[in-house]
Amino acid sequence: MTGAEVLLQTLAASGVEICFMNPGTSEMRFVAALDRVPEMRGVLCLFEGVCTGAADGYARMAGKPAATLLHLGPGLANGLANLHNARKARSPVVNIIGEHSTWHQKYDAPLSADIEAFARPVSGFVRVARGVEDIAAAAGETIAASNGPPGQVATLIVPADFSWTEGQSGADLQVCGGSPDPPPALSDDAICNAAKLLRAPGTALLLGGRCGRAHALELAGRLHRHTGVAVFLERSTPLVAAGRGRFQPPTVPYFPEPAIAALAGVRDLILVESQPPVSFFGYPNTPSYLLPEGCVVHTLAERGQDGTAALTALVVECGAPQAGWQAETPAPHPPEGALTLDALGAILAARMPENAILSEEMVSSSGPVLPHLIRAAPHDRMPVTGGSIGQGLPVAVGAACACPDRKVIALEADGSAMYTLQALWTMARENLNVTTIIFANRRYQILDIEMRRTGTASFGKTADAMMDIGRPALDFVQLAAGMGVPATRATTAEEFDRQLEEALAMDGPRLIEAVL
Amino acid sequence: MTGAEVLLQTLAASGVEICFMNPGTSEMRFVAALDRVPEMRGVLCLFEGVCTGAADGYARMAGKPAATLLHLGPGLANGLANLHNARKARSPVVNIIGEHSTWHQKYDAPLSADIEAFARPVSGFVRVARGVEDIAAAAGETIAASNGPPGQVATLIVPADFSWTEGQSGADLQVCGGSPDPPPALSDDAICNAAKLLRAPGTALLLGGRCGRAHALELAGRLHRHTGVAVFLERSTPLVAAGRGRFQPPTVPYFPEPAIAALAGVRDLILVESQPPVSFFGYPNTPSYLLPEGCVVHTLAERGQDGTAALTALVVECGAPQAGWQAETPAPHPPEGALTLDALGAILAARMPENAILSEEMVSSSGPVLPHLIRAAPHDRMPVTGGSIGQGLPVAVGAACACPDRKVIALEADGSAMYTLQALWTMARENLNVTTIIFANRRYQILDIEMRRTGTASFGKTADAMMDIGRPALDFVQLAAGMGVPATRATTAEEFDRQLEEALAMDGPRLIEAVL
Repeated sequence: MTGAEVLLQTLAASGVEICFMNPGTSEMRFVAALDRVPEMRGVLCLFEGVCTGAADGYARMAGKPAATLLHLGPGLANGLANLHNARKARSPVVNIIGEHSTWHQKYDAPLSADIEAFARPVSGFVRVARGVEDIAAAAGETIAASNGPPGQVATLIVPADFSWTEGQSGADLQVCGGSPDPPPALSDDAICNAAKLLRAPGTALLLGGRCGRAHALELAGRLHRHTGVAVFLERSTPLVAAGRGRFQPPTVPYFPEPAIAALAGVRDLILVESQPPVSFFGYPNTPSYLLPEGCVVHTLAERGQDGTAALTALVVECGAPQAGWQAETPAPHPPEGALTLDALGAILAARMPENAILSEEMVSSSGPVLPHLIRAAPHDRMPVTGGSIGQGLPVAVGAACACPDRKVIALEADGSAMYTLQALWTMARENLNVTTIIFANRRYQILDIEMRRTGTASFGKTADAMMDIGRPALDFVQLAAGMGVPATRATTAEEFDRQLEEALAMDGPRLIEAVL
Repeated sequence: MTGAEVLLQTLAASGVEICFMNPGTSEMRFVAALDRVPEMRGVLCLFEGVCTGAADGYARMAGKPAATLLHLGPGLANGLANLHNARKARSPVVNIIGEHSTWHQKYDAPLSADIEAFARPVSGFVRVARGVEDIAAAAGETIAASNGPPGQVATLIVPADFSWTEGQSGADLQVCGGSPDPPPALSDDAICNAAKLLRAPGTALLLGGRCGRAHALELAGRLHRHTGVAVFLERSTPLVAAGRGRFQPPTVPYFPEPAIAALAGVRDLILVESQPPVSFFGYPNTPSYLLPEGCVVHTLAERGQDGTAALTALVVECGAPQAGWQAETPAPHPPEGALTLDALGAILAARMPENAILSEEMVSSSGPVLPHLIRAAPHDRMPVTGGSIGQGLPVAVGAACACPDRKVIALEADGSAMYTLQALWTMARENLNVTTIIFANRRYQILDIEMRRTGTASFGKTADAMMDIGRPALDFVQLAAGMGVPATRATTAEEFDRQLEEALAMDGPRLIEAVL
């Protein structure tokens, strides 16, 4: 087998069965080998940021890594922002980068760049294949590293000549088994300590990592009901089970003032795959650290530990019984008239099918919309993790590949959508079951707010223009159609309701531009 | 003045008068300060790769740096690929990145990333502002560093708190004068040596860097006519004066076999702001180094030296007189019928107005089209420099900002266009005088060729699908209209001719999708 075939076989044998790719010359043999390894699904993207974001979304939903295939340093560079987000989500990603042939690397050819230097800030593991005989081992180590725990971006750099050289036979494949090593054991003392604190006034659990999933939240809900402990979710929790009938703890607010207010009563904070909450940005005369003075921080489970097992141990320790959670069902008659964010949230809550997956990058629109979804049918939500804009649509692509039987809904701000809009083309090409809703306020609205927060109460025309993305207005109906995704525009609540009903009833991709 | 105002004033006073920006929270004060420094033109882009590519195009045409303004590590990451291209073009770029407030940096906030690590591989100079009192000095050093010689990407990282703190008064501004330091002196020996070699059979000049400009080419043409010396242009020469009436030496071919054939007779190669030619990629059983065995390489001018002055010295030394260059004018009746690349090239040659600026990223289409342009009216051409795809449209944005009185024509492959298509929105917003021609072969055609070159004579359906970007077909007319650029589609030579005539006659942006 050639090195490329060894690489593909190793991936497939280790359970990595999808590769989001934007290949170039140095990756051609990998592409050619796809026909000989049918277990691997190649998904073509028109921009590398779509590949890396899709790998993140896939990992969040499938619980195992996808591969990427990117072209040299500049191809990796285009994928870095969403690898940053994947890093913060602790998503396992097998990030494969082609490099120039070994003998070609000494020349300063146009595409020569320091691939490792680009990769290190986003990767927990970087490995350069040292020869064709090394590819199976390098791939096995990379897959294992990606799985963690916690999951991480693991980068494998493969010189082109190794991919076309004949190397090992199939018998030499390294198979890492595809599943993570067992996490570091929990501390009995930490569990014991937490169990003692649960009933004390001012104790709160802060859940992050994999503890936004349904089972962990159910456990946390039992503890809350039984002991009165407060429960918060970390903002960047990569996957949150939500909707009626579920325990839905509040997320730590985005801006520091409401976050500080929400956490004001906390005397003991117990971390479960999370970290002490800090504000997104630093502002003048505002603390970045959000816990009240004197609040003691305890760690029940580190990021790489099994927080769900820790919660289970607490439930057993406390004897917390099962708890049911009620939520009103949404109003049967959705609102009419102006398409406000409130109307939009109410319609979404009423229309969302059971088991939907939300990719959420509404930015300034999320405040009014998300509270409505507490009453929606049970669903999973994938929030922004690393804060790098352009995550939402690619993550939706990956989630739809991981869960073809579920409806994916991408809630996407207009400004954010434009960073990685090429994701729409992959949705059309793969006929992915994604309904994209564009929140078109035609402004970098969040910057309006942030401008004031950084001490500029009023600003001039020129500054204002730098937040105005409505001149010219983006026409998302044409943009989507240009990439093969059927689209409509809604300007009233009735229109949005009708269009959403239609979009959710069909298979395949659809886009609604909601003009706010 | 606040730090942000000091920064803007320093830029403006040093002759940096345009900033391509995609700001975020940490850059808000810089944006707010725009209204108090009217000498600075802020140009908003919807994606950071547009900002950095535009800065490159601006520098190539204006001969001085533009600034960028990017948001934290992930914002920089999105701009890296075109900074890679700018680095290979030796374009001066003042690359400004906002960082979290100093006290906020110790927390692992979502957007925290290692900005310096991202910046170093593409930057010749990286400077972190150390306080508000340091901003003027840091900005001055960054501007000076960007200017070189040779020009380079110089990165300045500014923590947000310094931008809102009151600092220096206007009197303390550091003004670097905006022009580069004088280049290192030429070697008299090198000139003398080159002068001796010029008439020897097998001597060739290889021009790169600033030696693709009109005056340097004119000098090289005089030497060629007077002494018989062969002249070649480096592929990645960032700006090439071309068109009829000019000396138009051949560019070193892209693939190694024709390049080796073209250079086969060279015994002495004289570098003028260039480097020994190597192939773009390394291939099986093919040398990467393109010069024949035994060829001696001489350096007349290093990258940072003044190659044009060196050519002048040679002209004086040899007494080479002025030379006129004839080229046929294009056929008065453009071709009819099928829209082949040949037809397209012939129509372009006939229609291109005098003094047009071409941004050239045709990839596989360039081979048949470029030879026609030898007969076009005199123009300047900006080729791909670093090979990172997605350069063409952003570079056209920058060139149009630098030269508002000239027509910019972006010759853009369909696959390449999709990496930084957001450039169209900035063209519409700024009413830039750019005609974009999309070469729509609906395939990553170059990869077809490269696949065979890396040793895969035939490949299967799955591999083939990874080069097929026509499923679904991209509709560039809708994509352009969605960003406010009027567009048409041409499927015959007559249609293309009529649409091109119309596009070139109007002011402002226009797009033609040429379906091949």
